[in-house]
Amino acid sequence: MPARLVMKFGGTSVADLERIRRAARLVAAEARDGRGLAVVVSAMAGKTNELVAWTDAAGLAAQGLPDSDDEYDVVVASGEQVTAGLLAMVLRNEGLRARSWLGWQIPILCDDAHGRARIEDVPPDALAAAVDGGEIAVIAGFQGVTSEGRITTLGRGGSDTSAVAIAAALRAERCDIYTDVDGVYTTDPRIESRARRLSRISYEEMLEMASLGAKVLQTRSVELAMAQRVPVRVLSSFVEPGEAAPDTGTLVCDEEEIVEKRIVSGVAYSRDEAKITLLGLPDHPGVSSQIFGRLADANVNVDMIVQSRARTAETANMEFTVGKRDAARAIEIVRAVKDEIGFEDFAIDEDVAKVSVIGVGMRSHAGVAKTMFKALAERGVNIQVISTSEIKISVLIEAAYTELAVRALHAAYGLDQL
Amino acid sequence: MPARLVMKFGGTSVADLERIRRAARLVAAEARDGRGLAVVVSAMAGKTNELVAWTDAAGLAAQGLPDSDDEYDVVVASGEQVTAGLLAMVLRNEGLRARSWLGWQIPILCDDAHGRARIEDVPPDALAAAVDGGEIAVIAGFQGVTSEGRITTLGRGGSDTSAVAIAAALRAERCDIYTDVDGVYTTDPRIESRARRLSRISYEEMLEMASLGAKVLQTRSVELAMAQRVPVRVLSSFVEPGEAAPDTGTLVCDEEEIVEKRIVSGVAYSRDEAKITLLGLPDHPGVSSQIFGRLADANVNVDMIVQSRARTAETANMEFTVGKRDAARAIEIVRAVKDEIGFEDFAIDEDVAKVSVIGVGMRSHAGVAKTMFKALAERGVNIQVISTSEIKISVLIEAAYTELAVRALHAAYGLDQL
Repeated sequence: MPARLVMKFGGTSVADLERIRRAARLVAAEARDGRGLAVVVSAMAGKTNELVAWTDAAGLAAQGLPDSDDEYDVVVASGEQVTAGLLAMVLRNEGLRARSWLGWQIPILCDDAHGRARIEDVPPDALAAAVDGGEIAVIAGFQGVTSEGRITTLGRGGSDTSAVAIAAALRAERCDIYTDVDGVYTTDPRIESRARRLSRISYEEMLEMASLGAKVLQTRSVELAMAQRVPVRVLSSFVEPGEAAPDTGTLVCDEEEIVEKRIVSGVAYSRDEAKITLLGLPDHPGVSSQIFGRLADANVNVDMIVQSRARTAETANMEFTVGKRDAARAIEIVRAVKDEIGFEDFAIDEDVAKVSVIGVGMRSHAGVAKTMFKALAERGVNIQVISTSEIKISVLIEAAYTELAVRALHAAYGLDQL
Repeated sequence: MPARLVMKFGGTSVADLERIRRAARLVAAEARDGRGLAVVVSAMAGKTNELVAWTDAAGLAAQGLPDSDDEYDVVVASGEQVTAGLLAMVLRNEGLRARSWLGWQIPILCDDAHGRARIEDVPPDALAAAVDGGEIAVIAGFQGVTSEGRITTLGRGGSDTSAVAIAAALRAERCDIYTDVDGVYTTDPRIESRARRLSRISYEEMLEMASLGAKVLQTRSVELAMAQRVPVRVLSSFVEPGEAAPDTGTLVCDEEEIVEKRIVSGVAYSRDEAKITLLGLPDHPGVSSQIFGRLADANVNVDMIVQSRARTAETANMEFTVGKRDAARAIEIVRAVKDEIGFEDFAIDEDVAKVSVIGVGMRSHAGVAKTMFKALAERGVNIQVISTSEIKISVLIEAAYTELAVRALHAAYGLDQL
């Protein structure tokens, strides 16, 4: 089997013909190395928004949500189809053999959860034959097909997942994600100019980073890469061909392949949280399951939870966070169960941010939390809620302190000196 | 089998969401009659041009013509996909059952002449089952799929052909083509305000009208309708639902179904011609076949041809017309064969127009040509070339006389008094 490589170009990397030609030059450079190439593309930047706006207008009087509609997928998937055809044309004009592949042609088999489908299978034979035969496969990302032959889409950022799934199916040596940043950073460089690009990061850390607000890769694509052990490299599409040396960008890989050991790899933040507080809860078993059961039934994801005894020893207070998008729905449910459960009052605070430190080194190192709390305390940042996993610690703070907290933690763990 | 109807909406009839909603109301009105409905849609007006412009840009350095490219089809077919999805969504929001069908889903099987593919087969079973079950099939026009599973398109105006092919496959009682005019006229109303809408026209006449410059229907769609005996109705999409009474628009049908007998049904014109003259041709056999053989090899269609003896009895002159689009290519060939064949000189005149009168009544009536030549002579219009078929007479004249000639002929055959 010849070596195979998957390359993926996001919307800003194929935003117009000039960018598509630039992407084609990067593909051409890899093609000259003799590897079999599959290239996954997003829609031209802005196109998906235009298509979604039309579906919104078409669904004005919709009873259901338009984004769970099979016809939504028919409309929105057309954006990637256009880019795939155009890039194939440009590659041919560069003298290369290339053809486009749509989701249904490969096929990328998905479930029928339209608008947020999951890939179930990617039969590799036809694609592998083309790629091994030296024809560059230009694949429309973001889209798949159900077993009934209807078009599906994978949700925002789904082209990353397409690329990883293709790489897994082809047993590619790597999946290169070309984007508008040149890798994964220790934190957001717009907040901390001393943020550094990580040359490598483990799947587990990347997964936490993506879930916790770093928007470099779609969370599901990282899950899939981890499950299938696909090395993923994030790099900038704004380099010139040939400049993409092996150490360019950030490689997302197995923990064991990372020589340099760090306790903390990055600091992430998210302003997409809302905090809901329930006051004066009756202190008896089953209260939590009542509340969170109802929220789960309504598809509201609850993230951080903390319960504390109120000053009067008879009752407790509870705080939890939900996504800002779900906040209104969550409050509606809280209001509905108030009398049933018998708590005294409730409040919502959308003026919060979640700041997290992530690192696989935490597993074997004590004192990580202590460093975090000390750094925040020194800057006068009040911690409202804490949640932890094996490799991350998240705190909820007042939103105004976000940048201060991020910079304090970045320095506290020595990330500016990597 | 329940009655089935095919409706087709062109680009201006689905140009934006407002128009798509208007189209949906027309569909809804037909749906309430209990007929099985298949609705064929074009791309939103302007979208195909945008997509074609991108393929032009992508093919800048193309060796071949981009419009014969399989990837051209991948890009351009996306326009109809969008409209099909949107109309299906709007129909659902009106409380109707509907789903979109793409070319590959039906499938509309085509040959692999990309950019101008011909439909080879439309297996009707899946579509018929849906339609008979009361689900409106919203079909992306203009597109099909090869036996290899690649997307094809049918050439400009191809959605008309899609609609007729679907109507034939479904054995629909009729194919209604909703467009921006309210029928087929005796001539172009922009030139002759007394032009009248024909309530019926035969396939043969419509075919000549379409070939000779009337742009209401794609020529191939009329050929197909004639071959498959599909009644086609051309009508305006700018009527209100319910106003589309049975005698609205123009019905294209078998000659025998037309009660009112006319000798001439319409006057058509085209300014897309160029006249090429060869002077001083050697007068021996085989000269014509040499010239026209070379033109045919280069895919240049020759329309009218006339040969005349030159003043010196040893040589002949020849005049013929080609499409303006092919003129440069034709002249190149003429120049190349000049020495080989040994004619003295050549000239091209693009300042010409072809004006034609069409009518199945000509078969049984003498004197039609005489009326034509007399009417033109009275207005001082000089005839350069004449060509005839069983049901039409065309003359080539100086372009400046086009409107004058059209009006003179329209009056001469009493078409303003239908």
